[in-house]
Amino acid sequence: MVEIAVMGYGTVGSGVVEVLDKHAESIAGRAKEQIHVKYILDLRDFPGSPYEQKFVKSFDQILNDSNVKIVVEVLGGLHPAFDYVKACLENGKSVVTSNKELVAAKGAELLKIAQKNNLNFLFEASVGGGIPIIRPISQCLAANEVVEIAGILNGTTNFILTKMIREKTTFADTLALAQRLGYAERNPAADIEGLDACRKICILASLAYGKHVYPEQVHTEGISGIRLEDIEYAAAWGGVIKLIGQVRMMENGKIQIIVCPMFLSRDSQLANVDDVFNGILVRGDSTGDVVFYGKGAGKFPTASAVVADVIDCVKHFKARKYLFWDDGSPDYVESYLDNRVSLFVRASTDHETLAFQNVENKLGPVTRLFRGAREPGEIAFVTRKAPEREIRQGLRDLSGLGVQIQNVVRIGEL
Amino acid sequence: MVEIAVMGYGTVGSGVVEVLDKHAESIAGRAKEQIHVKYILDLRDFPGSPYEQKFVKSFDQILNDSNVKIVVEVLGGLHPAFDYVKACLENGKSVVTSNKELVAAKGAELLKIAQKNNLNFLFEASVGGGIPIIRPISQCLAANEVVEIAGILNGTTNFILTKMIREKTTFADTLALAQRLGYAERNPAADIEGLDACRKICILASLAYGKHVYPEQVHTEGISGIRLEDIEYAAAWGGVIKLIGQVRMMENGKIQIIVCPMFLSRDSQLANVDDVFNGILVRGDSTGDVVFYGKGAGKFPTASAVVADVIDCVKHFKARKYLFWDDGSPDYVESYLDNRVSLFVRASTDHETLAFQNVENKLGPVTRLFRGAREPGEIAFVTRKAPEREIRQGLRDLSGLGVQIQNVVRIGEL
Repeated sequence: MVEIAVMGYGTVGSGVVEVLDKHAESIAGRAKEQIHVKYILDLRDFPGSPYEQKFVKSFDQILNDSNVKIVVEVLGGLHPAFDYVKACLENGKSVVTSNKELVAAKGAELLKIAQKNNLNFLFEASVGGGIPIIRPISQCLAANEVVEIAGILNGTTNFILTKMIREKTTFADTLALAQRLGYAERNPAADIEGLDACRKICILASLAYGKHVYPEQVHTEGISGIRLEDIEYAAAWGGVIKLIGQVRMMENGKIQIIVCPMFLSRDSQLANVDDVFNGILVRGDSTGDVVFYGKGAGKFPTASAVVADVIDCVKHFKARKYLFWDDGSPDYVESYLDNRVSLFVRASTDHETLAFQNVENKLGPVTRLFRGAREPGEIAFVTRKAPEREIRQGLRDLSGLGVQIQNVVRIGEL
Repeated sequence: MVEIAVMGYGTVGSGVVEVLDKHAESIAGRAKEQIHVKYILDLRDFPGSPYEQKFVKSFDQILNDSNVKIVVEVLGGLHPAFDYVKACLENGKSVVTSNKELVAAKGAELLKIAQKNNLNFLFEASVGGGIPIIRPISQCLAANEVVEIAGILNGTTNFILTKMIREKTTFADTLALAQRLGYAERNPAADIEGLDACRKICILASLAYGKHVYPEQVHTEGISGIRLEDIEYAAAWGGVIKLIGQVRMMENGKIQIIVCPMFLSRDSQLANVDDVFNGILVRGDSTGDVVFYGKGAGKFPTASAVVADVIDCVKHFKARKYLFWDDGSPDYVESYLDNRVSLFVRASTDHETLAFQNVENKLGPVTRLFRGAREPGEIAFVTRKAPEREIRQGLRDLSGLGVQIQNVVRIGEL
């Protein structure tokens, strides 16, 4: 029998305890050991819970119990999660977590401690919820060079964008709906400003290329600036707007990495990933494109990914899983302004013909877009592909020439 | 350094050798060992090949070399592959294969020998080519009960159906095109009659439910009977025709398993899996639906999956991978005639009104379908859901009542 502790009895934590209980027999068969939850750490009381006897309020009780071999961390946030996880790994306990903030900020450090102590630090549930992605990237694609990873990594924003596209509702109204349905939190900033997606692409990039990428290094834009006009122009262009996290290795050994809304062609394998679903495209030099699709969050999908890691941990007490990446460095990420992109631009002007003369003078040839209910003086176009810095300079110049930029969205090539 | 042998230097075998060579450094990093191809078994000569020194014509040379720890079997077919693989596993060599025919026919037997000798028998490449699916099912979904697996498992037939749907070409013309493009073999029977898909769903079913399912136990229909009329009716119904392999666990402990063309609603997650791509839907009780999508065949996708297994094997010389299933039994598969389905039926008659009276007498209420260029006397409808045996009996009765059945396609609920 293996004894474990679960830190945090929120949505995911209660799901983990329930899955371990409900599937105890089949899990024991797969792990070749009974798995027993000895402690649940939570500061709250849960009177009447069938697990009432397991609750503890002191982390030290878990840390000092040498029978506890695996600790599940589902507290979320950096503090106290980081200190707790570090202490566990320094004291002979393997750790399984769903905490993307922790892995994105401290992954390299914690993996190093785990390696030194010959323990496992596993985090399949931190990206994609119940979609297997960490393990396929690290194992199945071992014989590939990963050319690129791009994904719809946040269900809340994908739900909002899907609704806006289908029902022509505004961002504010759709966010309010998502909050009523429980798909968005009361404070939705981490989702809608792209931070959640940023943490996930950082984890995938760190794993795929072996070097830590920190969220602060990633240019991140959310979806709160997307207007219905932009969605209509995307449709006119032949696509949809999705919030994409994307990373590519460049020939100079640096990476391009960004989180932002993008125009995606309707033919893109990610264009049909709708509602709260996530989709992750892994482009390998041998496999070509492989796409993983499913619910990226939710109590039981996430809990089952955590439990699968616990099982894997039990099966590998002696053989460490080779999840590892090195520390990052400040110059590892290329400035997004040096990436070559096309931009969709929506602007207003008093004189359309003159405006387009100026646009083409500053930006070279552009593809003009139209929509049905265009406001007077509203213009929209897609630029040619060039380093973003150049196009942005052109756009700044235009504002002195009677062209007011309203919004800019990158064109994704996926 | 780990020494391996590759048996078979066809498309996949040459790809395996090339991937191991091209990515030698990164593979050694991931496996923590250099991997060296010592022998390549092939009866043909490859003069001028950079690997000329490695070729051998005698299997015994590999078998008797105790330095060879892993053997890659990419010969295809049952003989001599089965005897060779069995001999390897009985003589201390782990085996990695892409041979679906071998795994579908002999998986339980070979897994048992591997287990007894504490060796690995791995076959990620046997299903889905470069799409990771065996490992995600066996590991990531360990904390799930698999409710159902359904997939588009054969790229050749999916290419043909996609072309027929998009370009309104006949089956015969499209097959000829697929042969010219190298997507279909000169003798295409294994693909178009569904046998290839059948072997793959057998492997997935065996893995998911722990008990061997043999191809002979699975009712299998191919796509050679699909006419453009059927494709037009599928469009009128709101969907497309796909060749699907599907398995479900029933409450009585038996499984429902079938390979056949199905009508899929356009909303289905598999309806947009087009051309030579494969898509596999795994429905778990905790994860919900997870879909894996990518190229299911091809030299480098398949080779990279084989090489990933070789790496995994090197990393797990001491800790066996827990891939295992038991022997099958004759009564494990429910007769497909007992499955509850709706059927699409296309028929001809001399008297439409009378025919529909008879149809509804024999089959209960049906949904009539229409297409633009309908032939005189052509009728088409979708039945209610009932045990297939009942509906088939009704269809037989109808043939005595002036309704000639032309084709029947099951309605997929995916």
